[in-house]
This record gives sequence, C-alpha cells and structure tokens, in this order.
Amino acid sequence: MTTVEDTVLAYWDACEARDWERFATLLADDMVYHLPQTRERIRGRAAFLRFNQEYPGDWHLAVTRVTGDGRQAASWVTSTLDGVEQPAVSFFDLDEAGRIKVVTEFWPEPYEPPAGREHLVERYDPAPR
Amino acid sequence: MTTVEDTVLAYWDACEARDWERFATLLADDMVYHLPQTRERIRGRAAFLRFNQEYPGDWHLAVTRVTGDGRQAASWVTSTLDGVEQPAVSFFDLDEAGRIKVVTEFWPEPYEPPAGREHLVERYDPAPR
Repeated sequence: MTTVEDTVLAYWDACEARDWERFATLLADDMVYHLPQTRERIRGRAAFLRFNQEYPGDWHLAVTRVTGDGRQAASWVTSTLDGVEQPAVSFFDLDEAGRIKVVTEFWPEPYEPPAGREHLVERYDPAPR
Repeated sequence: MTTVEDTVLAYWDACEARDWERFATLLADDMVYHLPQTRERIRGRAAFLRFNQEYPGDWHLAVTRVTGDGRQAASWVTSTLDGVEQPAVSFFDLDEAGRIKVVTEFWPEPYEPPAGREHLVERYDPAPR
C-alpha cells in the first residue's frame, strides 16, 4: 500500500530529478499550491508544473524529513539554490485517489535572535539540516 | 492509546493555557529545542519551560494542523502577538516513553514575491490560516 509518506517522497524525488511526467502523475488535476508568506496561489496541475519547470537557478532539493498519516503529511526539505541552503516546509493534502490536492509551503529565512533570552539559549553554527 | 498527534495537541493547548505543570509533563527532561533560522538551541526541560514562561507580549497560539505518525509529527500553528498573526511550523520527535524529546521550529515571515511568475500566480488577501 502506498502511504502518504511514500507519495511525498516520490514528489520530491521526481522534482529533484526534473522527471515532470512522473511528478504530474502524483498531482490532482485541480490541485492548489499556496505560499502564505507571499499570499501567492497557483491553481491547477498545468500551471503548477510550469511553475516548477520554469523555476530559475541551479536548484536542488534534499528531503530532511517527511511525517504524516492518512491523507495528510508535512515535509521538511533542504533546498540549495546557487550554493545557498534554505529549508522549506510543506503541508500536503491528498484526495481520495491518493493524489496531491493541496500543497501549502513555507520558506523560512534566517533572522537575528531577539534580545533578552541569551541566558537560555546557545547559538550553533553552521545552519543545521 | 495516546498518539503523537494527541501529544502535540496537548502541548499547544497547555502552552496557550499557560498550564506549565501540564506542559512540563509532556516534555523529556533532556529535551532540545532548535530554531534553525536564528541558529538558537535550548537544552533541557527547565530552560525550555522558562523560555516559554518568559516569552514577552500578549501571545496566543491556535492550532491550524497537526500531522504525524509513530514518534514523529509536525504542527502548523497560528500565533498572534500584540494583534499580529504569524504562522509557526514545528517538527516533533518523541522518546520511547512518548515524551517530546526534540522540537525544531520555524517562524516564516512575509516577503515580496519574486518577479517573473505573475503569469502563473494570483495574490490573495488576507493572509490565510
């Protein structure tokens, strides 16, 4: 049986391989992709495929973690774009046929720690995966 | 049976309620909290409790989604701090006793969409949950 985790791993694997045929088979026709940080939304498999195909730069994606159950999952991947690493966190909803229907994705960026908690924290380096 | 999702829901519920006794029962003594964006790390339940107890402002947390299985889960919560909403995404690892051993947390911030994909995306407003 294919689990939601298998589906999400296959999604990232196909994306990294630029295997767009395989990538497309994992997506529902009417899928929606949300980027809450920019309030951008892409509707439909065709537009979402094109968004990925056209994404500029020499990008790579490595899965750090996938967790989920039933028809929902979350992934944490490490993206490398022109040598710079950044984490991406995505939430997935599958439809009844096991295809990806909704992806909601976050791209958290580095920021300076707020003052006042130095007595509780240590800093580490380099950035972890 | 208590699932990892139950534990994560109880964690956020106790946090929002400032029920620090209950919150502490969910945590392993040697837990570690990671904030990859600032490269901050907090070691141990006592320090992590204090970090939460001392966190400034009139903050509130509402769970948007929890997904997981076995000893791992991810949550997406909506934080409100002094009237400003922000999503937070956390990954959890439980120990053998079902207590939270590792929390890795991201606080994604709004940013302007890169140019060049306007033909594929629509913008929405207000920020979604």
